[in-house]
Amino acid sequence: MTVSRRTVLAGGVAIGASAAMPAALAAAPTGDCERWGIHEIALDGPGRGNPFDDVTLEAVFESGGRQIRVPGFYDGDGVYRIRFSPPDTGAWVWRTASNAPALDNRSGRFACIAPRAGNHGPVRVSKDGYHFVHADGTPFRQIGTTSYSWALQSDAKCAETLATLKGGPFNKMRMLVFPNVPSVATDPFVRTGAALDAWDPTRFDPAYFRRFEDRIRRLGALGIEADVILFHPYDEKRGYSDMKRADDARYIRYVAARFGAFRNVWWSMANEYDNIKTKTMADWDHLFGVLVAADPHDRLRSIHQINTYYDHRKPWITHASVQNGAAVLDDLRAELHRAMTLKPVVFDEVVYEGNSTKRWGSLTGQEMVQRFWHGLIGGTYVGHSETFDPDQNADRSWLGQGGRLVGTSAPRLKFLREIMEDGPAPGIDAIQPWWNYHLAGIPNAYYLKYFGSESPTEWRVALPGRGPAAAQRYRIDVIDTWNMTISPVAGVFAMSQLNDYDVHDPARPTVALPGRQWMALRLRKV
Amino acid sequence: MTVSRRTVLAGGVAIGASAAMPAALAAAPTGDCERWGIHEIALDGPGRGNPFDDVTLEAVFESGGRQIRVPGFYDGDGVYRIRFSPPDTGAWVWRTASNAPALDNRSGRFACIAPRAGNHGPVRVSKDGYHFVHADGTPFRQIGTTSYSWALQSDAKCAETLATLKGGPFNKMRMLVFPNVPSVATDPFVRTGAALDAWDPTRFDPAYFRRFEDRIRRLGALGIEADVILFHPYDEKRGYSDMKRADDARYIRYVAARFGAFRNVWWSMANEYDNIKTKTMADWDHLFGVLVAADPHDRLRSIHQINTYYDHRKPWITHASVQNGAAVLDDLRAELHRAMTLKPVVFDEVVYEGNSTKRWGSLTGQEMVQRFWHGLIGGTYVGHSETFDPDQNADRSWLGQGGRLVGTSAPRLKFLREIMEDGPAPGIDAIQPWWNYHLAGIPNAYYLKYFGSESPTEWRVALPGRGPAAAQRYRIDVIDTWNMTISPVAGVFAMSQLNDYDVHDPARPTVALPGRQWMALRLRKV
Repeated sequence: MTVSRRTVLAGGVAIGASAAMPAALAAAPTGDCERWGIHEIALDGPGRGNPFDDVTLEAVFESGGRQIRVPGFYDGDGVYRIRFSPPDTGAWVWRTASNAPALDNRSGRFACIAPRAGNHGPVRVSKDGYHFVHADGTPFRQIGTTSYSWALQSDAKCAETLATLKGGPFNKMRMLVFPNVPSVATDPFVRTGAALDAWDPTRFDPAYFRRFEDRIRRLGALGIEADVILFHPYDEKRGYSDMKRADDARYIRYVAARFGAFRNVWWSMANEYDNIKTKTMADWDHLFGVLVAADPHDRLRSIHQINTYYDHRKPWITHASVQNGAAVLDDLRAELHRAMTLKPVVFDEVVYEGNSTKRWGSLTGQEMVQRFWHGLIGGTYVGHSETFDPDQNADRSWLGQGGRLVGTSAPRLKFLREIMEDGPAPGIDAIQPWWNYHLAGIPNAYYLKYFGSESPTEWRVALPGRGPAAAQRYRIDVIDTWNMTISPVAGVFAMSQLNDYDVHDPARPTVALPGRQWMALRLRKV
Repeated sequence: MTVSRRTVLAGGVAIGASAAMPAALAAAPTGDCERWGIHEIALDGPGRGNPFDDVTLEAVFESGGRQIRVPGFYDGDGVYRIRFSPPDTGAWVWRTASNAPALDNRSGRFACIAPRAGNHGPVRVSKDGYHFVHADGTPFRQIGTTSYSWALQSDAKCAETLATLKGGPFNKMRMLVFPNVPSVATDPFVRTGAALDAWDPTRFDPAYFRRFEDRIRRLGALGIEADVILFHPYDEKRGYSDMKRADDARYIRYVAARFGAFRNVWWSMANEYDNIKTKTMADWDHLFGVLVAADPHDRLRSIHQINTYYDHRKPWITHASVQNGAAVLDDLRAELHRAMTLKPVVFDEVVYEGNSTKRWGSLTGQEMVQRFWHGLIGGTYVGHSETFDPDQNADRSWLGQGGRLVGTSAPRLKFLREIMEDGPAPGIDAIQPWWNYHLAGIPNAYYLKYFGSESPTEWRVALPGRGPAAAQRYRIDVIDTWNMTISPVAGVFAMSQLNDYDVHDPARPTVALPGRQWMALRLRKV
């Protein structure tokens, strides 16, 4: 039995050492790994029996007194892998533990070096609790999209999807592990017969997961987060979401060990969890416990509903993932989700842009963009998708398989993202939502106002605030969110007290608006 | 030491039996108690030391194999009481346990008879989980008000408050145990000096609590629920909400034993809990545990916030009590509170009607009533109060001390309550809130539509629904919620399919509206 040198998948370093080598040599440094990259260890081990069930493997990584226990996984053909994404630079040492002698007590070390350009680290919840930042402090301004089974399509189709994403607005992709529409890859488990549900939940097909992680890696190269959805209710005939608890847990541990080291991974426990009738709330809570224990990289975790909101206050949830068709038609509805979860809120599904005769797939581009703006003014984030297909077949649309975008919202979402990135970090909050101002920003510094489907010809410039801190001078930009123009208003608005609650400029009480829909205002302190 | 015969306070029966009596005699029936009334046992016991801390007392009541353990309390002058509200008719027996020999192992029995007219039993959460019903099945349509310290005013002032309440719209009163404004009763604990905070948390003043429960009883006689608020942040100088945990727990146990048997009691753990800076979230959770254990009558339980929403999904919370100035300006904002708590929602504070220069006390009557209607359309409930005072002194207003109402909302809230009571039981729900219909009711049977501050001249009559079940015939009433008129529209609207989602009457696609504010429509299946 030897330890083989293996190609690593993403910024990691392969380990080469023979089993007969003395420990000192085996522990010699074997290459550098950038911070938040992947240091992957590949080891040859038992290939008989059922390695997924029979063999335990983990490694403890240590640096500066900090120990991190990382589970390994079986990748087929007698090869076992352990993937670790080092959270800090410096010298790391590791040692394995396994019930297989060939995999046990192996050790090594490596240097974790500074991240390369463009590597900002994984996304975390911001200190204020309501936004997202990369580990290096770079704000992450979520503009999501969904293409459920894009990762399971042919390489050519996936390349088309990636080309669409490149340079577009989207920095998070929601994607199912298990297929929901016609796909090239359909078998995450080893088949045992011809029937759709003839497969062995105890034996994964490594090629299926290798393909999936290739898609994760390619998204990462574009700076796009992969929101990996572990279960969903749309495969009744295959039954991947109707496994027993022990099978669910094995699957979660496998996926966590394989995918969790990729710094762009987020976990979505399920899509429309409450439509999976074979699982109870207790099952979901249990599976979150499994995921937390299986994921030393502590990636973001949420779960998505159709009818019954999951309790996103539960401690294992990092952010609220919400499906709601009407909540982001009003910034204050959106904001209430923050008020009630005390966490960042992503409206991952707000019905789709498309040409469907179904109401869930027939938004105009304007209506799609409108939802992002209302969400933003509520201090929350929104997700896009579209269902255009000449034959009304949503399966074949961007939503199902990816490919090209047909809709008109994407450029406007890119325009929006630029405005977000030009704004305060890590994000903006609703201003005094209790008092119905419909304003977002940072008090006494930066404000956004969005008029949605209204067509006002002016806005009375009044900002909540009192005292010297509120007596600021602002420049105002009139933003056409659809035509993507930013028109500065000449001069400055010098605020003074209007009443007990608001400031205004008595010399300029209003600002003119063009009487069109989809307008916004930006006020920035001079 | 003898057991004295005592007058009972509310529908109960006093127990008379000498300590020397044989058990069989002591256990003789001593009178009837109506179901959900109070059977009160009064016993003479130790009066020295600190009976509140030194003496334990409880009784176990048993009927038909069901046992209920009921804590007793010390009422001063050597008298101990145990109050029990029997949940079922039939023969009940009881036996005490105490560390004081005079109070220990006493026993008795009584018959629980059918409730008298007007006694519908305590209010519980309805089976559907979002409304309220009395124990006998009578719906409870909450139209609340708040008068924080009314119960602590003079008997004359309290009589004025009760006269105001009698025949008015309000069926729930929020009231503080500890005073927040100038009051006749200010000392729940025995004073130890002249300073405001010179009192002994281990010694209650029974007279203070006797006065308070008299107010609870008088509300009950008017059919009004007493929403008893245990802590609040407005008494910094006295410090009643800044006690130690053990003192808080003793207080909760005392209040639960004294007040909990009154069938019209609800518990609000705190007003603006998050403004009580001496307690943490862990403290509040702990105190709910104390309350649950101390209250065998299992009265409704909630807690009210200023900024940080308490997690009303926690299992000890029976309904969400919410303060929000803007949520009930939109029925779908209101509905989201149900979606996120999965419980009945009462917006107990939505800012007040009044003449205050402060924005929290300056709603017009129309604006106050508007909030109730939006809440209703969201499937939730709302609370009123008012702050009129010639000198802008809110302490002296209805909100602080009770007395007379000056505002104009109350008659309109009574009109609203009649509409609610005339509608489906136990209440109505938002119809397809996800799709922004702004309709409430029972699908294919009953609908309410509210136009708030808009002034439409017609409404396009379209109801969500599909298939034969939706093809109903409706009569429509035009409701002026401010002028309190109900105008039936002549004829019938016969629904047929309009599109995939809605039905309408092709012969009568619209209904005329008068172009005024505060209008509503009611559609009832013929």
